[in-house]
Amino acid sequence: MLIGAAHADIPTVPNELYEALKLDRAKVTPKELHEALVKRYKDPAQGAGRGTLAQYWEPIPYGIYLDPATFYKSPTTNKEVASRKECVECHTDESPVWVQAWKRSSHANLDKVRNLKPGEPTFYKKAKLEEIEKNLRSMGRLAEGENLKEVGCIDCHVDIGAKKKADHTKDIRMPTADVCGTCHLAEFAERESERDTMIWPHDQWPDGRPSHALDYKANVETTVWAAMPQREVAEGCSMCHTNQNKCDSCHTRHEFSAAESRRPEACATCHSGVDHNNWEAYSMSKHGKIVGMLGNQWNWEAPLKDAYAVGGQSAPTCAGCHMEYEGEYSHNMVRKIRWANYPFVPGIAENIKSEWSEKRLDSWVVTCTQCHSERFARSYLDLMDKGTLEGLAKYQEANAVVHQLYKEGLLTGQKTNRPAPPAPEKEGYAYTLPNCSGRKATALQPSN
Amino acid sequence: MLIGAAHADIPTVPNELYEALKLDRAKVTPKELHEALVKRYKDPAQGAGRGTLAQYWEPIPYGIYLDPATFYKSPTTNKEVASRKECVECHTDESPVWVQAWKRSSHANLDKVRNLKPGEPTFYKKAKLEEIEKNLRSMGRLAEGENLKEVGCIDCHVDIGAKKKADHTKDIRMPTADVCGTCHLAEFAERESERDTMIWPHDQWPDGRPSHALDYKANVETTVWAAMPQREVAEGCSMCHTNQNKCDSCHTRHEFSAAESRRPEACATCHSGVDHNNWEAYSMSKHGKIVGMLGNQWNWEAPLKDAYAVGGQSAPTCAGCHMEYEGEYSHNMVRKIRWANYPFVPGIAENIKSEWSEKRLDSWVVTCTQCHSERFARSYLDLMDKGTLEGLAKYQEANAVVHQLYKEGLLTGQKTNRPAPPAPEKEGYAYTLPNCSGRKATALQPSN
Amino acid sequence: MLIGAAHADIPTVPNELYEALKLDRAKVTPKELHEALVKRYKDPAQGAGRGTLAQYWEPIPYGIYLDPATFYKSPTTNKEVASRKECVECHTDESPVWVQAWKRSSHANLDKVRNLKPGEPTFYKKAKLEEIEKNLRSMGRLAEGENLKEVGCIDCHVDIGAKKKADHTKDIRMPTADVCGTCHLAEFAERESERDTMIWPHDQWPDGRPSHALDYKANVETTVWAAMPQREVAEGCSMCHTNQNKCDSCHTRHEFSAAESRRPEACATCHSGVDHNNWEAYSMSKHGKIVGMLGNQWNWEAPLKDAYAVGGQSAPTCAGCHMEYEGEYSHNMVRKIRWANYPFVPGIAENIKSEWSEKRLDSWVVTCTQCHSERFARSYLDLMDKGTLEGLAKYQEANAVVHQLYKEGLLTGQKTNRPAPPAPEKEGYAYTLPNCSGRKATALQPSN
Repeated sequence: MLIGAAHADIPTVPNELYEALKLDRAKVTPKELHEALVKRYKDPAQGAGRGTLAQYWEPIPYGIYLDPATFYKSPTTNKEVASRKECVECHTDESPVWVQAWKRSSHANLDKVRNLKPGEPTFYKKAKLEEIEKNLRSMGRLAEGENLKEVGCIDCHVDIGAKKKADHTKDIRMPTADVCGTCHLAEFAERESERDTMIWPHDQWPDGRPSHALDYKANVETTVWAAMPQREVAEGCSMCHTNQNKCDSCHTRHEFSAAESRRPEACATCHSGVDHNNWEAYSMSKHGKIVGMLGNQWNWEAPLKDAYAVGGQSAPTCAGCHMEYEGEYSHNMVRKIRWANYPFVPGIAENIKSEWSEKRLDSWVVTCTQCHSERFARSYLDLMDKGTLEGLAKYQEANAVVHQLYKEGLLTGQKTNRPAPPAPEKEGYAYTLPNCSGRKATALQPSN
Repeated sequence: MLIGAAHADIPTVPNELYEALKLDRAKVTPKELHEALVKRYKDPAQGAGRGTLAQYWEPIPYGIYLDPATFYKSPTTNKEVASRKECVECHTDESPVWVQAWKRSSHANLDKVRNLKPGEPTFYKKAKLEEIEKNLRSMGRLAEGENLKEVGCIDCHVDIGAKKKADHTKDIRMPTADVCGTCHLAEFAERESERDTMIWPHDQWPDGRPSHALDYKANVETTVWAAMPQREVAEGCSMCHTNQNKCDSCHTRHEFSAAESRRPEACATCHSGVDHNNWEAYSMSKHGKIVGMLGNQWNWEAPLKDAYAVGGQSAPTCAGCHMEYEGEYSHNMVRKIRWANYPFVPGIAENIKSEWSEKRLDSWVVTCTQCHSERFARSYLDLMDKGTLEGLAKYQEANAVVHQLYKEGLLTGQKTNRPAPPAPEKEGYAYTLPNCSGRKATALQPSN
Repeated sequence: MLIGAAHADIPTVPNELYEALKLDRAKVTPKELHEALVKRYKDPAQGAGRGTLAQYWEPIPYGIYLDPATFYKSPTTNKEVASRKECVECHTDESPVWVQAWKRSSHANLDKVRNLKPGEPTFYKKAKLEEIEKNLRSMGRLAEGENLKEVGCIDCHVDIGAKKKADHTKDIRMPTADVCGTCHLAEFAERESERDTMIWPHDQWPDGRPSHALDYKANVETTVWAAMPQREVAEGCSMCHTNQNKCDSCHTRHEFSAAESRRPEACATCHSGVDHNNWEAYSMSKHGKIVGMLGNQWNWEAPLKDAYAVGGQSAPTCAGCHMEYEGEYSHNMVRKIRWANYPFVPGIAENIKSEWSEKRLDSWVVTCTQCHSERFARSYLDLMDKGTLEGLAKYQEANAVVHQLYKEGLLTGQKTNRPAPPAPEKEGYAYTLPNCSGRKATALQPSN
């Protein structure tokens, strides 16, 4: 993937990222790229941590796992000091399923990866591993000619390539995205490029949002969220809004199976519910139902680019369409975003026929024409746009009634002894959160 | 299946169809049967096309795929003139997943079908292919002694057995049910016989409805549908109501896997939602959950009649019960219909103990006693009938209140400045469509 | 499992059961244990049968299958008198799928069980069969040295080990839990121990409830249920509330596959719906989604204790966590119950920090630490407790408003000509049933 051993001109990472980080993509080394990425990633001014409303809320105990960079502390009850090997031995008894899952992982089987032969669906992992080792050499984490032996507990939870024993009470960390990104530099850079490519023409959303790269910021910068006294209910939002902080929403620990993360169910736990019922729409669509009927016959080990031809896939998945952009696959999932899930956010609908939006529509047509004709694709996308606008008109009609009632003081509580309704907030955002904190009424909504 | 080479006395096609078409089932040839079927199928007076409300609505661009017989035009942008072989070659690049799926299909592997051995679950396909070839000879589409070599792009999208090159701008068609029915004559005739067997004793529904055979007519003849200005929302109904027009709702292109279409998920995309929540009821029932738990161990390649004994199935599917009638399986799915999904349609409940209905109940008992005792089956069906009547009574109670309020002018808007409510339409039908056009609140409803 | 041939000191059965039945666990024989269990099980004073509200309701015809002990009568229409072998022969034609399923079962393949080798995932069944044969010898149902040849139709539906022919009109029975419990004594005793271990500190629920062991009693002792004139709707509740009476809700007839019953879908048909939406919460959680993604690659034949290590499971199932107690697995599923599904039942929330509850929380931590650290487990359980309390506060706020409105006579119908609302019933229970009888609005509710 990389041109030359010491360069990080990663083809799947858009120019926008290199430019934003003021890096010359032809010359930058893996070490320099990672450092620049991490510097921005950890910068509170650029979205890291508790945010500008920090004074209004305190973390719950479970919060250490939601934003480990900010809240995690090494455990105090376990005083063991353990070597690389002892970690595995002790946790085989202490938390056996961790170890069982890890033993099935690529992390524990690097030699198997090295021995993959061309023609095997996972052969791409061999090149991936070589790329990772080049990166680690560039960062000084592997000596010249040295290979990775394994990726064990201690590498992620203490230090990559750790040679010394680790003290539970001092050294244990919860891996954040930048830790995974040390080895998986391409994926980290791709994901971080969402900040640079999700730029709206009229500030419909803040720069870089919505995206996985800044989803925790989106959470903690929301006034209703920060002000809620029921912190356990509020942190129900954070349960999903942690992709910025860590990678295990899609890559569940400790097998971190890429095959698993390609399945549509990997996205379902977050992308569901009345506030963003993508899973309900997809899983009830013909696309989703074909995956349900035939998916277990397909080879999910094949990388996304080979899913149809090698994996035998006959219907698209979430990842298959959303990680694709102009024929290439990456962890930047926002380059074709046009509606951003919330048609009522001011400026979104008005923008849908703009040059900006039409260009993104054209990219969707590239995606769809893997399986459909261009005419089919364009007429279907047109149907979706217009149907959304028609639904939005209904919403706006109802919304106008409520606004007028509020203005005339006619809502329950405005002139009675019932609790007064909240004043309208900034348009768009206010309508989402109440659903999010109490997503009870999730419904299956077929996509037609 | 056929008695003699040139006869189309198809055992799974009920007498009612032959009678309706004025054909002598002992003498009619495949050619004559197909021609008679197609004549009725294409007749606007018998349900083809835009219907009697055509003046009120215009098709959306995507509409060419919903009712190709009426709206489809060959593409004008692609000017290629291509042979049978060139279609495949070019589309391997242009729309690769089409070609990949087709290559896995029986259509692309007729010799494999011819070489099937007795004992193989799909052995029935060998006889099916021979029957199809006899039909095509009767129609003059194969010479005596000539066999089908393949069913390729050009056969369905231009002309069956096409020898000449095809011009995209003039010759391309979207296959309608009668095109599929040229080869799959038995299945087409079975399906078309729904028009003749779904005859209600007191015109509860129009002749032949509800059925797959006339589901597009049911759509376009609905006043609310035709009158809606939001055409993209209205065509959300048509997305499902196209079985009359084409076969790919269940037999998804381009593998057209019978095994896939036997799975209950094949029915789910249409038979779901608040307006007809069959999927929610089934998938949450013990029947549905057993399919969910064990289905991937069964051999879905076995035809429905062998599903239990050969396929290893241990719980029923949608197709397994609804395509069965008195021990035989066909594409007529309405011969046991008694409630027709909408208990509140006038005359349905009143009819449920009639001789007409009891005879259909007896046919259900035949279905159920494959796996249950007769006493179990009858007591369960009795429970369902009475439970439905009890639910209906609740509905009618509420309905009477609203009607009375309307009569007395007490509904919102009748005497205020709010928009007036619509006047009650013909009973029954009016209550369905509003759900259908905005099927948001679909809920999982367990079947007990 | 048993210490000595004639003793029934079953390790997985808690002391509470032996004490409640006044049996010395060191000395009791299988015969004595079974007799003591059955005596209590069949005692109307201890929850068997129609209950104290029997005078208010009559069974529907299907009711013979819901409470066979009370309502089932042998069929009168079938007059066959048949031997063990003739049962199978005749039903191969009469109800073929029964026989096909049974032929796949362990019941029909006892020699296969005897020939299992150490290392096979189902090897545990060999010891289980030997234990069952010891029990049957203790009960005088097998002679010394005699082995079971098969478990056929006649054993369960007439008499275990029946040698004589059976008369359909006199001898046929529907197997109740005590019939299954003759052979499966350990499982029956484990299940029956729910009566003795689900004892609440302040009578939040009656002794032994909620539990599978007394779920039919819970049903028939509910005033709204017994008083409903719509009996088919009422019996919709009974559809699930029959675990007390029989075992086939989880072990579906006639394969009775333990592998099937381990899958989470086995619990879904009952544990779903607005009144107890456990399936919706689980199936949309990451735990549930991992099962959905990877479950078909696991070996479900492995017993629960080996599910992770041998079965390859990487996420927990309903059974995996709820049948586990302090590292052992049994059919008592209530020893860790703290919230009992209904936080609003008076006294439940107040009890959640009691010593009684904390002890049960500690047992949950044992469960969770198979895959998570103790800190993770405790902070997550704390999140769930506090989140539930926060939700409950909202519910109580709304509830207080309605109560106050009722007190002031302001509810619809209290001072108008509309039907009056029902007076508030005993707190807690009244709010559940209306949902249960009309569980229409079941929603997917993600668990976070």
